[in-house]
Order: sequence, then C-alpha cells, then structure tokens
Amino acid sequence: MADLNSLLKEIKGYKSKMHGKDFLLTWEKSLDEIKQILAIADLLKLMREKNISARCFDSGIAVSLFRDNSTRTRFSFASACNLLGLAIQDLDEGKSQIANGETVRETANMISFLSEVIGIRDDMFLGAGNTYMREVGEALDDGVRQGVLPQRPAVVNLQCDVDHPTQAMADLGWLKEHFGGLDKLRGKKIAMTWAYSPSYGKPLSVPQGIIGLMTRFGMEVALAHPEGYSLIPDVIDVAKKNAKESGGKFSCSRSMEEAFKNADIVYPKSWAPYEVMGRRTELLRKKDHDGLKALEKECLANNAKYKNWECTEKMMKLTKKGKALYMHCLPADITDVSCKAGEVAASVFDRYRIETYKEAGYKPYMIAAMILTSRFKDVHGLLARLVKQGKERIIA
Amino acid sequence: MADLNSLLKEIKGYKSKMHGKDFLLTWEKSLDEIKQILAIADLLKLMREKNISARCFDSGIAVSLFRDNSTRTRFSFASACNLLGLAIQDLDEGKSQIANGETVRETANMISFLSEVIGIRDDMFLGAGNTYMREVGEALDDGVRQGVLPQRPAVVNLQCDVDHPTQAMADLGWLKEHFGGLDKLRGKKIAMTWAYSPSYGKPLSVPQGIIGLMTRFGMEVALAHPEGYSLIPDVIDVAKKNAKESGGKFSCSRSMEEAFKNADIVYPKSWAPYEVMGRRTELLRKKDHDGLKALEKECLANNAKYKNWECTEKMMKLTKKGKALYMHCLPADITDVSCKAGEVAASVFDRYRIETYKEAGYKPYMIAAMILTSRFKDVHGLLARLVKQGKERIIA
Amino acid sequence: MADLNSLLKEIKGYKSKMHGKDFLLTWEKSLDEIKQILAIADLLKLMREKNISARCFDSGIAVSLFRDNSTRTRFSFASACNLLGLAIQDLDEGKSQIANGETVRETANMISFLSEVIGIRDDMFLGAGNTYMREVGEALDDGVRQGVLPQRPAVVNLQCDVDHPTQAMADLGWLKEHFGGLDKLRGKKIAMTWAYSPSYGKPLSVPQGIIGLMTRFGMEVALAHPEGYSLIPDVIDVAKKNAKESGGKFSCSRSMEEAFKNADIVYPKSWAPYEVMGRRTELLRKKDHDGLKALEKECLANNAKYKNWECTEKMMKLTKKGKALYMHCLPADITDVSCKAGEVAASVFDRYRIETYKEAGYKPYMIAAMILTSRFKDVHGLLARLVKQGKERIIA
Repeated sequence: MADLNSLLKEIKGYKSKMHGKDFLLTWEKSLDEIKQILAIADLLKLMREKNISARCFDSGIAVSLFRDNSTRTRFSFASACNLLGLAIQDLDEGKSQIANGETVRETANMISFLSEVIGIRDDMFLGAGNTYMREVGEALDDGVRQGVLPQRPAVVNLQCDVDHPTQAMADLGWLKEHFGGLDKLRGKKIAMTWAYSPSYGKPLSVPQGIIGLMTRFGMEVALAHPEGYSLIPDVIDVAKKNAKESGGKFSCSRSMEEAFKNADIVYPKSWAPYEVMGRRTELLRKKDHDGLKALEKECLANNAKYKNWECTEKMMKLTKKGKALYMHCLPADITDVSCKAGEVAASVFDRYRIETYKEAGYKPYMIAAMILTSRFKDVHGLLARLVKQGKERIIA
Repeated sequence: MADLNSLLKEIKGYKSKMHGKDFLLTWEKSLDEIKQILAIADLLKLMREKNISARCFDSGIAVSLFRDNSTRTRFSFASACNLLGLAIQDLDEGKSQIANGETVRETANMISFLSEVIGIRDDMFLGAGNTYMREVGEALDDGVRQGVLPQRPAVVNLQCDVDHPTQAMADLGWLKEHFGGLDKLRGKKIAMTWAYSPSYGKPLSVPQGIIGLMTRFGMEVALAHPEGYSLIPDVIDVAKKNAKESGGKFSCSRSMEEAFKNADIVYPKSWAPYEVMGRRTELLRKKDHDGLKALEKECLANNAKYKNWECTEKMMKLTKKGKALYMHCLPADITDVSCKAGEVAASVFDRYRIETYKEAGYKPYMIAAMILTSRFKDVHGLLARLVKQGKERIIA
Repeated sequence: MADLNSLLKEIKGYKSKMHGKDFLLTWEKSLDEIKQILAIADLLKLMREKNISARCFDSGIAVSLFRDNSTRTRFSFASACNLLGLAIQDLDEGKSQIANGETVRETANMISFLSEVIGIRDDMFLGAGNTYMREVGEALDDGVRQGVLPQRPAVVNLQCDVDHPTQAMADLGWLKEHFGGLDKLRGKKIAMTWAYSPSYGKPLSVPQGIIGLMTRFGMEVALAHPEGYSLIPDVIDVAKKNAKESGGKFSCSRSMEEAFKNADIVYPKSWAPYEVMGRRTELLRKKDHDGLKALEKECLANNAKYKNWECTEKMMKLTKKGKALYMHCLPADITDVSCKAGEVAASVFDRYRIETYKEAGYKPYMIAAMILTSRFKDVHGLLARLVKQGKERIIA
C-alpha cells in the first residue's frame, strides 16, 4: 500500500462529482469516482494503522435502517460511522413493510434534522429496495430545498434488490490489494457463479454487483448459473456495456466448469432466480402465506437439482494452475460444516478463510469513503487536514 | 432569528431556577424559564447552522426509556443528546409494565452512575406516567443525597399522561418563528380541536400541552371537542388560570366550526376521552383482554359519530382570511392517504406539510435546551464559552 | 480514598502482565494485577469526581454481547466504555444459541475490524459460557496473527458459568472502601450463603466469584448451602488453595447459622445446584421442553424445603455485634416486597439498601480498568498523561 502523501495526491487527481449525491449503484459513478473511493478507503485504513484520527464530525447522527437481517454489514456501517465521529441511531420499523409515499417522505425528514448519513438495507422486494432509497433521497432533497433540513444526509445503499455496492467495492479493494493494483486486474478472469445452497430467497444483489463493477476494469467476467437462475436483464446489459467500454469480456453460460476453467478468481454463491423473486414479491405484497410456502417448496426442489454446483477441490483444479483466488461475501454455506451440502467444500473454504476475512475487512473503509465523498465538497482538503493535524486516535 | 450575541444577551436576562430540576410540565416553569428555553433552542439551532460545536460533554450517558412506541421523539431525543456529546443507552423494560416502588428506586440508581439525562415516554396509563417520572426523580435525589450518585441526571418528560412538553415547546418555538416573536402571539386565536381518526386510545397529552402552554402568551385558546371527549379537569383549570394571568382567553366548546371561526392557527387532532382512558387504565392493570376489546369497539363506534370533525377545505375557509396556520404533531391521519377518513383533508395537509416539518424540527433543540438548563448552573456562561471557543462541528 | 498522585504511584508500583490478555477469571490474575485494577478503578472514580476526562479513545467500537438478560451489567459496560470514548454496538444473536466453531471464529473477526473491546455475558449453559469466551479470544488472536485485525480487542467476561469477575471485583472494591483498605480485610469473616428464592436456574457465578476472590486477602470465607446445592468442584479447589496461600480460611457447611455466626460480612444469595445446571444444560441442548418443565418443577419443590434459608433480623443477630455488612449483587428477592418469601427480610434489606447501591456503583469503574489494562501496554503512563492534561469531562 502506498504512503499517506502519495494516496492524498492520488485522491486529489481524480475528477469527482459525488458531493451531495447518494451511493446507490456503482455504475452510476464514473471510473474516476470509483478509484477515488478506493484510494480514500486505503488512506483511512492506513491512517488507522498509524493511529491518526479520522474524526471529522464532532457530533452527528448516522441512521441505520435494516429492512433485512444483518450482522456483518451492520457492524461495518457502525464502524465506518464511528470512525468519522458519528453516532448510530437504529430506525426500527418492523420488518420489510412497503410504506406509502407520504410516510416515506415524512419519516425521511423526521429522522434527519441532525443526521449526516442514512444507511439502508432493503433487499427483500424485487423492484422495491432501490426505488425506496431513491424516494428517501428525493424527500431529503426536498427537505433541504424547503428549508426543513440544514444539511443533506448522504444515503448509502447497504444492499438492495439491484446492487450491493459496499460489498462489491470491498471485493474490488481486496482484489486491488491482492493483485497489487487495479491495472493488474486487466485480463484476469473472474468466475461469478451460482452455487447450491439448502436455503432459498437469497438476494441477487451480490452477483449483480460483481458483474456490474468488475467489468469496468478490463477483466474477463464469466457469469454462470443453471437454467432459470438468471439475473435482472438490465444489469446484464450494464455488464455487457461496461465490458465493451473497458476492453474486457463478459460472458454468461450454464456451466460452472466452463466459468471456472482457467479462472484467476472464483466467486461461487447461491441466489434465487429473478423470476422467483418477482413471484415472491407479489406474494409478500398480498401476504399470501400459503402461496409463499408453496413457492419455497417448489424453489428448494428446483435448487436440489443443482447440488453439483459446488466449489469442490475438483472444480478448483480447473482454475488457473488450480490456484484461483476464492471469494465470498460471507457467511458461506460450507458442506459438512454449516450444512450437509452447500456452496463450497470445507477444505477449499478453509484454505481461503483468512482471505475472505481480509476481503470483508475493506467494507467499513469503503462505507466511510462513500460518506466522506458525499458529505464533503473538498474531500481531499479534509483528508489532508486530518493527516496534517495528526491527532492520535488512541492516546498512547 | 437574532444573532448569536443578542441571543446570549437575551438568555442572560432571564431569571431561571431550572438547575437541578426536571422538565415534567410546562406550567411548573416560570414565564422567564420558558422564554429562556426558547432562546437557548434558537441559539443552538443557529450555532449548528454556523457549524459551531455545542458539545459540552466529553463523555456521558443519556438513558432513553420509551414505554410506548415512538420514532419522531426518539430521534429528537437522540439528536439532542448527541449534539451535546452524550451517548444514548436504551432501557428496554418490555412494554408498559407498572413496576413496584422498590424496582423504580433501584433501577433509577443502577442506570445513573455515569448518566447525565434520562428521557422518559410513559403515556399509556392515566395517572401513572407523570407519577412514574416523579418517582424516578425522587429516587435520583435520594441517590445523590446518600452519596450513591456523583451527579443528578436530568429527567425530561418525552410525553406522559398529562403533558407533552417537548412537543408543546417545539410548537411554541415554531409559532414564535412563524409570527416573528412571542409578543406577536398576543391576541392571536388558536383552535385546539378534536378531530376524527379511525384509531383509538391516543393520549391526551398534546391538547393538554397546547392549552397549558399557549394560554400563557395572551393568546385566545379555543378548545373544542365532541361531548364526552373532555380532558383532565386539572389541566383545564391550569389553562383558565393561565389565560386570566396573561390577559388571554380560554374557551371550551362542542363545535369545530366555532373554534375555527376567525382562527389564526388551527390544531385539529384526535384523542381518546378522559373517561375512556381511565377505564382503559383499569382494564390494562387487570389485564382484562376481553374488556379491552369491548372498550375499543365501543370507543371506535362512538368516534364514528363524529366523522364530520375533519379539517376540510370548507372548515379552513372559516379561519382568518381562510388562511390560518395548520399545525400537527405528526403523523396526521390524512383522509384518502393514510386512512379512508381522518383528521385532515389531503389538500389541506399538503399545503401545510412543510410547515408541520419545520414545527417538528424544533424538538431536538428544545430537548437540548431542557438538558442544559437542568444540568448547568450557569447556562449562559456555558453557552458563551461554547460560542467564544467556536469549535467546528464538522471539519470543513 | 487516596489522591490522584498517590493512586498513580500505587498503579505504577504493581507488576502487571495484563496487556493483550482477556479478563475471564479473577484467579487467572496475579495479586498485583488484581490490586492494580482496584487502584485504577479508584483513580477513574476520582477523576470523574474532579471532572477530569478519562477519554483515551477518539473513536472505537465496544461490542456488547448479552446471551442472557441484563440491565445492571449492560449499563455498567455501556458506562465504562463511554467513559473511555468507545461507542456501544449490540450484537444481537437471538438468545443463548450454542454456535458452531466456524461461526464463532468468523463472527469474532467480522465484528472486530474497528473494535476495541467485546463484553460477553454467557451464563446459561454450564461448561459453555467461559469456553465460548476463550474461543472468541483465540479467534481474535488468530485474526491478529493473520493480519486480518489491526488491533486485538479485549474480551471482558460480563458473567459466565464459572465466574462473574466484574461483580466480584466491584464487591471487593466496595469492601476496600467500606473497611478502609485491602489490608483491613485480613481476618474478616465473610459468609457466602445460599438463600431461598421462588425462582430457579440462577447462575452459580456470583458465589463462585466471591469464594474465588475473597480467599486471596486473608479473609475467612464461610460458604454455606443446603445439601445438593454445591458449586463447581474446581472452583472449590481454587478457593481452598487461595485461602492456604493468603493465610486465610475457607470452610463449607450446611448451616446458614454457622456461616453467619460472628461474620463481619454476609452475602446471602440464591443459586441453582451444580448438578441441576448440568442436567438443564443437557435438556437445553436437546431442546427438550417437557424435560425442562419437569426439571423446573422438581427444582422449585426442592428449593421450597429450604425457605428457612432467609437473611432475617434473627439471622443478622448472629453476626458480629449483630452488625455485619449485608451484600448483594442485586436485584435481591425481598420477602413481602418482590415476592412472598425470598432471600432477605424487608427490614434487613432496607437498612443496607444504600450500601448495596454503592457496591454496584463500582462495577463501571472495574470494567473500565479491565479494558485499560488489556488495551494499553503502559497503563500508568496513559493515566498519568490523562491526569496531567486534565481535560474537563464537562465544560463548566
């Protein structure tokens, strides 16, 4: 990793218009903006290692709104906010209600009088989560325009139905470290594949986030999943367009083996089919419990046809020199550990366990970087001042 | 709004004996004390706009005790405490239990060793909420006297069965801004009226808070509600006495039209009848679930007789030049938006939506002012020092 | 209490190797280390009284993991962390699951990227709670070794199946204050006795903590309980060994009267028999609800045979001059107050109520001292610097 000054210089060099905007989808950000987030995350990580405080808020609230369970992302968000000086306040609505527009507009303002950021996870309903985040953002814009709010809190997408940008950015930060720079990713093959899991209804946001982001760096992104497990078509289009622009490749097959073949990186992970998520959303809206049970049964039966989509030692042998980097957003369904048959063989997971932890370790810094770029007009100036003042994070 | 120095001068000019005392009912505070809270709230708001930190606690716990659901007030309390440097710690007792005296005394001390403020919402039981807050206060006094506690945390009433002082003070702060000063309120007519809602059991504390506070500023306070929806008689007496002393008026009618006629301000809001709340409290104590269901049914049927108590466009036409200021503590029951028939027509609410948000925006600052006046002997000196040191809230 | 400088000098004088280690059992710490914790707690208490900030973390997360209900210890932990500048983040797993090793290892790392301390209460399963804490500690050690974590959070035992060290240390701190020094405890008799309670399944950690710690200061520790209510045999051995080494005494009888006779201090408190806790753990693991109900019934019936094990006025008369100090970890089961027949007569409890509050008041400072000694290599240097810089905790 570079030193403090070269990172500051790098951060200054990027053209960035993220101030006042939310972080909802990586493909809404320019390549310079993505690179700036990565460099800021690296700087914050290094500042922490050097015991330099990154606290830029003397007070301020960070709203934590999880419409689905979470431990990892919740802690990452809490850690990021704490690093910058913000206090977490949970907004507990009860689970996954689809609120009417009036309520969204009102609540967004009511929780924001002294808030600096609102982190939202809303991934249960296809077509709803990302839409909800935009509604919140518009309500906040209106609140500022009307003189209700003295500041515009940043909205950070902590996983929606379309993207999981804090995860994808953490994954990218880890790849940058692992391979020694973003330029080293050019030409590398990453296999983003479906994998069998005994559970059902997992969001599509992780594979969508990966194909939407990794295609921007000249990588060869090989998506693979069984028939019927397709992703949102719009995101497939994004991946194709990205690959074309970056000089990379994007392919989509029905074979795990084909995707793994000669891959530098593999990311085998379960998800529910797009069509199923759509039907499920309808049933949830109607509160049709019998329909939901029937769908779950149907879906698990269908999953079971593809138990051979497992990241085994044999499968790993197909990768480049048999030594591809294994990635996962965690927790993984590990065969004979967390379930009888799962996404990955125990011996494979165990060999890459520490790597997956390091991958996860980037998330707090990515979130902090997203907050800073949204809230500070001159983010380089802020960071330069923090580095220069060099306040100890821990008195030592 | 005045500038920092004139606000500081104003704050200094008031005679105040709030140090070491709790904020439980507005009518227990002198007029000077009420005005000082308003001025401090304005100062804190202005300091925030000018990016001056109001952090006066380097550490300290703020206990958040909600015996009823809340989003708005919970966030207001959290924001106020955060602004001053305190960390929220929720006390989760399970809902609305009526604890024995030993438990109250013990718990009050156990949660207060390093606490600076205890915010309490307890509005479910008539005759219980305010009493409970006083028991907590007495336990804290005893704890200090006996050397158990090194400091006396301030108790702030975040809504009880009698008053909702943080709401009423926020409402007053908003009226002061809207009309250009407290003196401009003299002679203004405010209609505090019942309004129809499909729900049941809403506390009486908001209308009681309004008639108990607004009568102190020479206003003409017109309370109106259907037969049987009376408020606590003691609070009616307070309002009468206040109006007499301030040179204002207080009336109570059975006609929404009469109250709205020529009003400068209207505050139409549903509440449960005093008598019903009394019966409900008894049934809750006995855990008589059948009795509670029967009471709810009876009460909703009774409510339904008064669906015409709605703040419609036609009703608004009766007000001064048809342009009275509409107020609400939020969330309002809006006809055809949040329910089929409610307190207010959608077009009326929409016209005043932003105004109700601004009204709500005063609450965090009122709570912060209540904490400061209770915890600091020389609150002017403290604020002058914070302004003078001018520490940035956000590094910019 | 001594002044700041003499406390600093005392702290410097102790040989301590607590840096980087967890606080899980008092008997794993040397006598010097125990004394250093006591002195640091006294210093922190005095600093607070003198309005000197003890904030040494500018940012940092404190993970609060309660696998059993708690109000007192939860607030003590929150207060301690807040005093040092750390923000609480609750880890809510649902109650008392016994997680598999993979999950423990992974979760421990995932919550620790920016965490400084993890406080754990896990006292439901005999043989599981303390083991779990060690697994967490080992996972953290591994995380640091592998470069996953940039710092090693301290694990603090907030009650397990074996010890309740923050309680026992608070009890010791209170005895030190009450009798005027640790050396004054030599030769004092403390009766740690079982007492009747209408509840069932209370942990053994408090009596075990008391006999494991008080035997180290030359005290005469008289344990007493009915037949069948024995403690974990290993801890009995620890108490015997301690007593021998410190020149004190340890006895175990079947008579409350014998233990109370001529005692300087009495600590009557209910607990479940060791054998019952073992059977209960097995039934909980099997989720055998009928078995658990049957066991509870059997156990309550057995308890009822010993209703005469109550700390009555008559019983108190047996103690030294009838004036032994009554202690309890709270809440006590008080006869005719919190239950019909309980651990202590109302008149006895009421006479010592304030004393039990003061006893509890030491807990936040003990926890803070445990965090500091684990996280700072030169804890004396840190504290000396904090005292010297003399930053106000509250701007005054």
